[in-house]
Amino acid sequence: MHVTSIVNGVDLDRLSGTIEHVTAEPTLARFQFRARNHWIDGGYSRTTIKDFYGAGQEDATRTEPFTVDSDEPPVLLGENRAPNTVEYVLHALAACLSGTIVYHAAARGIALDGLETTIQGDLDLHGFLGLDGNVRPGYEQIRVTIKATGDFDDDQLAELASLTRYSPVRDIVSNPVPVAIDVARA
Amino acid sequence: MHVTSIVNGVDLDRLSGTIEHVTAEPTLARFQFRARNHWIDGGYSRTTIKDFYGAGQEDATRTEPFTVDSDEPPVLLGENRAPNTVEYVLHALAACLSGTIVYHAAARGIALDGLETTIQGDLDLHGFLGLDGNVRPGYEQIRVTIKATGDFDDDQLAELASLTRYSPVRDIVSNPVPVAIDVARA
Repeated sequence: MHVTSIVNGVDLDRLSGTIEHVTAEPTLARFQFRARNHWIDGGYSRTTIKDFYGAGQEDATRTEPFTVDSDEPPVLLGENRAPNTVEYVLHALAACLSGTIVYHAAARGIALDGLETTIQGDLDLHGFLGLDGNVRPGYEQIRVTIKATGDFDDDQLAELASLTRYSPVRDIVSNPVPVAIDVARA
Repeated sequence: MHVTSIVNGVDLDRLSGTIEHVTAEPTLARFQFRARNHWIDGGYSRTTIKDFYGAGQEDATRTEPFTVDSDEPPVLLGENRAPNTVEYVLHALAACLSGTIVYHAAARGIALDGLETTIQGDLDLHGFLGLDGNVRPGYEQIRVTIKATGDFDDDQLAELASLTRYSPVRDIVSNPVPVAIDVARA
């Protein structure tokens, strides 16, 4: 008899299968994610996301691309057609912290009922506008509050907090990632 | 007679107005962006984005919140209901590089016809899975190619590349941002 173990919506058999595969064949852990952005007007642009490489092959599970738009609010000369790019960073970080806690909690048998995350980032426009070389263009700091409900004791609550160290987007935001940019004529 | 100058979709009068205001009253440059994420199941969650603070006041131009979903592909135990969080980072970075070039090019009188950006990020799952402490959870490197068309010479093309230094998301990804995370019971 095979019993499927689903904790927090995570299939534990598949999760341990992934870990076994990666342990047996480390190159299966290599992923390459991709996106294409098309500029429309001012701060308004559209990104399409579809294919990626991972687990030793090109993924073929997405038949249609995802479309993600960015714009700016009027005070930043846009028309509010979509969130702006630094708001997407907050989305990516909040969602990644949530998902990371959920997967790793599942692997440890900690059952969650809910996670609600609020996130704020402080930014000084002097950096983007190039008005003050001592002000960075990006966020000066980000604050995150995660409210968790579920069947866990205080030690496990502390463990949930510590699991955020595995979050890819936390790492990307907290630590330097080398970014190579080539600008050329089409 | 008032002539409106729009370059690359950017209203130059409003852009110089913003710069004048910020120069006269530096606190107007302070922005705080926000998001709320609600975990649904596994790696699937939903972010709402609406209010922010900037230019000396709470913004009131958005009547409805933006909704942004994240999920994972099947190989990462999701159901492809939305892009994943590290794909959103690529979107945010590509769109921000584009918008930054567009605004700063407009301010310099460089007229663009098109910007097409492709972006790739390499990630080793050993980090997220906690299988190897020497592998970071996030991207090991990101590569961006921006193809520009428009009325510019080679010196201006080089200038376009250099303008990416003002990109908030480039700064966030390339340099450390302090992230404070509080996990508590709801």
